[in-house]
Formats: sequence, C-alpha cells, structure tokens
Amino acid sequence: MGEEPVFVYKQCLIVRTDIRMSCGKKCAQAAHASVGALEHADKNLKKAWLAEGQKKVVLKANDERMLHELKAIALHAGISASLIQDAGLTEIPQGTVTALGLGPAKSGDLDRITGNLPLL
Amino acid sequence: MGEEPVFVYKQCLIVRTDIRMSCGKKCAQAAHASVGALEHADKNLKKAWLAEGQKKVVLKANDERMLHELKAIALHAGISASLIQDAGLTEIPQGTVTALGLGPAKSGDLDRITGNLPLL
Repeated sequence: MGEEPVFVYKQCLIVRTDIRMSCGKKCAQAAHASVGALEHADKNLKKAWLAEGQKKVVLKANDERMLHELKAIALHAGISASLIQDAGLTEIPQGTVTALGLGPAKSGDLDRITGNLPLL
Repeated sequence: MGEEPVFVYKQCLIVRTDIRMSCGKKCAQAAHASVGALEHADKNLKKAWLAEGQKKVVLKANDERMLHELKAIALHAGISASLIQDAGLTEIPQGTVTALGLGPAKSGDLDRITGNLPLL
C-alpha cells in the first residue's frame, strides 16, 4: 500500500448550493474564501498549513443562514473565518453571500464544525 | 446606470479541462493556485489587490503544456506564478498538474498573457 500524507491542518471552503452559479464562479468564490480566511489566520498556523501542502476541502451549504451560523461557531472556537459577498459583476446580484472560508486550523477542530456537510 | 468598481489588479486562475475533475475538485485547485501565486507575489501588489477586493478570473486551459507555457511567459514578465500538482488522494493520479495561478498583477499585463483563454 502507498503511503498517504498525513495532514494535521486544513481549510474548509463552504459554497452555497441554493443560488445558481457556474462552476467557474464557484471556483472564484472558493478562492476568495481561502484567501480571506488565510488573511485572518494565526501566522504560525498559516506557516504549518502551507508547509504541509495547504490541504483544502470544499463543502456544500444549503443556504446563507447556514454560512452565518458556521462562521459564528468557528469564531467562537478561535478559528479564522471569512464570509464572501460577491461584487455582483456577473451572474448574481451584488452583495450576495456566496461562500465561507474557515481556517487553516487543526482538522479535528474543523471536523467538529463542518463534519456534517457534504463535499461539493 | 450603476457605478461599477474599477479593478486595476487581478489574479488569473487557470484550470485544465482535459482531465476529469468534479466542480468541487476544480474549486480546490483554483484555491490552491490563488494562494500559491499570492505567496510568491510582491507585497505591495498583494496589498493593493486585497484592498481593491481581490478580483479573480477563472479560465480554462486545454492541456498541461499550455499551463507550463503560460507560467514561463508570466515569470518572464515578472508576474508571480504557481503551478499546482495534485496530492492525488482523490479523483486523479498523484502529481497531476491541475491548475496555474498568476498574479496579482495589473489587469492589462495579465490580459496580454491570458487574453485568449475562455472563462471556466
């Protein structure tokens, strides 16, 4: 059996699925969420996560309320969080909340918050 | 008419379309490309781009060779570039080149390199 790398840290990028976005649009929102959460993250966590290979998991959320709730829970747990509002130049109305980035943080800590969400 | 924000800077995230990846997988690759290119970018460019709202454009590439060529052209033009190889834990073989992140850089400078690529 091949050896699989073990990731201690990860980021979770959570994208709304109740609004119509092309795959390209979802990619942009996920990248916004990743950079946004990273900008607010602890520097040592960021370093460790980058050194490991910056694991990211992309998940689905049913609606905007779920993103707000997950953000509040994450911040309460000391995990960096970045809620993304679209500039609205394409596809969807300006100011629409599209995605949430969480972490980097320890995988187990994120799993306690996002463990029930399906993969996108 | 509404006022549209003017973006001086952007990032281009270029994803291969000749390998089979789910939309969630593409999102993760685009986010890797964004963070990767950002880590190599000039600090002042990074600051200016973040302050503007971190514009990102997600584009398609036909194959791996195109990503290598675009990377070489961008680096020659002084634009940060990050080629993404997948860890291969899901969907595709380990080490597969999946995406390329370019910038942030001035929009016009990136357009000269990526202007012919279609949106994802």
